[in-house]
Amino acid sequence: MKRTLKPIFAINFDEKQIKMTQLDIENYIPHLSIDCVIFGYEAKTLKVLISKHKLGQGSWVLPGGYIRKTESIDAAASRILKERTDLENIFLEQFKVFGAENRIIGSNIRENLKSELEQTFGEENANWMTSRFVCIGYYALVDIRKVNPQNGQLDDYLEWRSINEIPEMIHDHNEILQCGLETLRQHLDQKLIGFKLLPETFTMKEIQELYEAVYAKPFAMNNFQKKMLDSGVLERLEKKFTGAANKAPYLYRFRS
Amino acid sequence: MKRTLKPIFAINFDEKQIKMTQLDIENYIPHLSIDCVIFGYEAKTLKVLISKHKLGQGSWVLPGGYIRKTESIDAAASRILKERTDLENIFLEQFKVFGAENRIIGSNIRENLKSELEQTFGEENANWMTSRFVCIGYYALVDIRKVNPQNGQLDDYLEWRSINEIPEMIHDHNEILQCGLETLRQHLDQKLIGFKLLPETFTMKEIQELYEAVYAKPFAMNNFQKKMLDSGVLERLEKKFTGAANKAPYLYRFRS
Repeated sequence: MKRTLKPIFAINFDEKQIKMTQLDIENYIPHLSIDCVIFGYEAKTLKVLISKHKLGQGSWVLPGGYIRKTESIDAAASRILKERTDLENIFLEQFKVFGAENRIIGSNIRENLKSELEQTFGEENANWMTSRFVCIGYYALVDIRKVNPQNGQLDDYLEWRSINEIPEMIHDHNEILQCGLETLRQHLDQKLIGFKLLPETFTMKEIQELYEAVYAKPFAMNNFQKKMLDSGVLERLEKKFTGAANKAPYLYRFRS
Repeated sequence: MKRTLKPIFAINFDEKQIKMTQLDIENYIPHLSIDCVIFGYEAKTLKVLISKHKLGQGSWVLPGGYIRKTESIDAAASRILKERTDLENIFLEQFKVFGAENRIIGSNIRENLKSELEQTFGEENANWMTSRFVCIGYYALVDIRKVNPQNGQLDDYLEWRSINEIPEMIHDHNEILQCGLETLRQHLDQKLIGFKLLPETFTMKEIQELYEAVYAKPFAMNNFQKKMLDSGVLERLEKKFTGAANKAPYLYRFRS
């Protein structure tokens, strides 16, 4: 998935694609964007899908996009996620609006980006894209094995990164990611949405490992098991009889 | 505070004020608004400050406004609250974005409102004001005794209404209020912000009454008292010695 960064001024954009964007701007709400914190879980690690930008000297960014004048903000977020992950019906929720007056305009990186965007999209579009934006943060939970990352128009490549290895990103995107992570931690308990990150059936050990990855701390096994069982959301499946049946752990699934 | 509704087409707007608004539109972010659920507590009742609109055949609305291109969304919300309550440094927090594509355009009331706005503000401004808006909901907690309600440009009057007596409001404003109330209920416990609705010192009975008003249900006294004391946020003040000291309840205040 990872590729070498191309030199900034030698990007071969698809001509047709650029033209579409130039026409498109009028169909989007100005000054309002969506950025997505897309969480996946793999190898006992909580990961986030981030993008290496073609422009801005290869900045890291959260996958994001704009809102069409004819779609709801939730529909826009679903579309943006579909464009990047090739998945539909993803679990996603807005978590916060980021609306500091200088979150983009004040950034030096943005000034460099603007001249690159002008060369590619023309002055009018570059002005639109680098004007002040208020950003609605959405977080999403996906089954990482089902995701087929798709580059957006300005993505060089997309990459799953452990939450312990997030690079410095553009603007306030690190703050947005951190806030999305805190929301996931709150909701994992309140809304019991953890199963969206797990396969259909799992052992108690597996779900504990997920919780430990999300909260970045260990849980005492007995307490954890009691809490999960007391919550009443888990259904214990029958063990299949095998020679080693009594050593095999029980499998659970979430009640629907 | 309550006044008789004036006939819709006989409103005497201040000419200068209207002119300012006409000039002002360019200084605001289009398609993005803030609506506020302003909570106060009085006579064992949780109340919300709502506005009777001059236009729209006297619709009820939540106090709201637009965001200047040069201010953060939090600063905009503070300014809107200051304009309506005459208070500064109010506790306020965003709680949700309301972004259905038809939340305003699809409304019949809005169509009537548009022709009224055209007569008052001219076609360009009326188009701007009745275009699609994505709305950021903020909730605020105020000391009701300190509030001096101030009419906005389009308010006929503002009124404190018990949460049990909220009239039908314009657009999705009832949904916004309900969502603000649910957020207050969550945060009252999580963030222990209840003291912003109480005087500086209070009895255990008084804070229990506040909780009961917010949650609209009774709490068992012993459990409630234990929970509040266990949370460690309350400081018990010394009783003053009087003849009836042993009958007077303890006073508490929140630790700062």
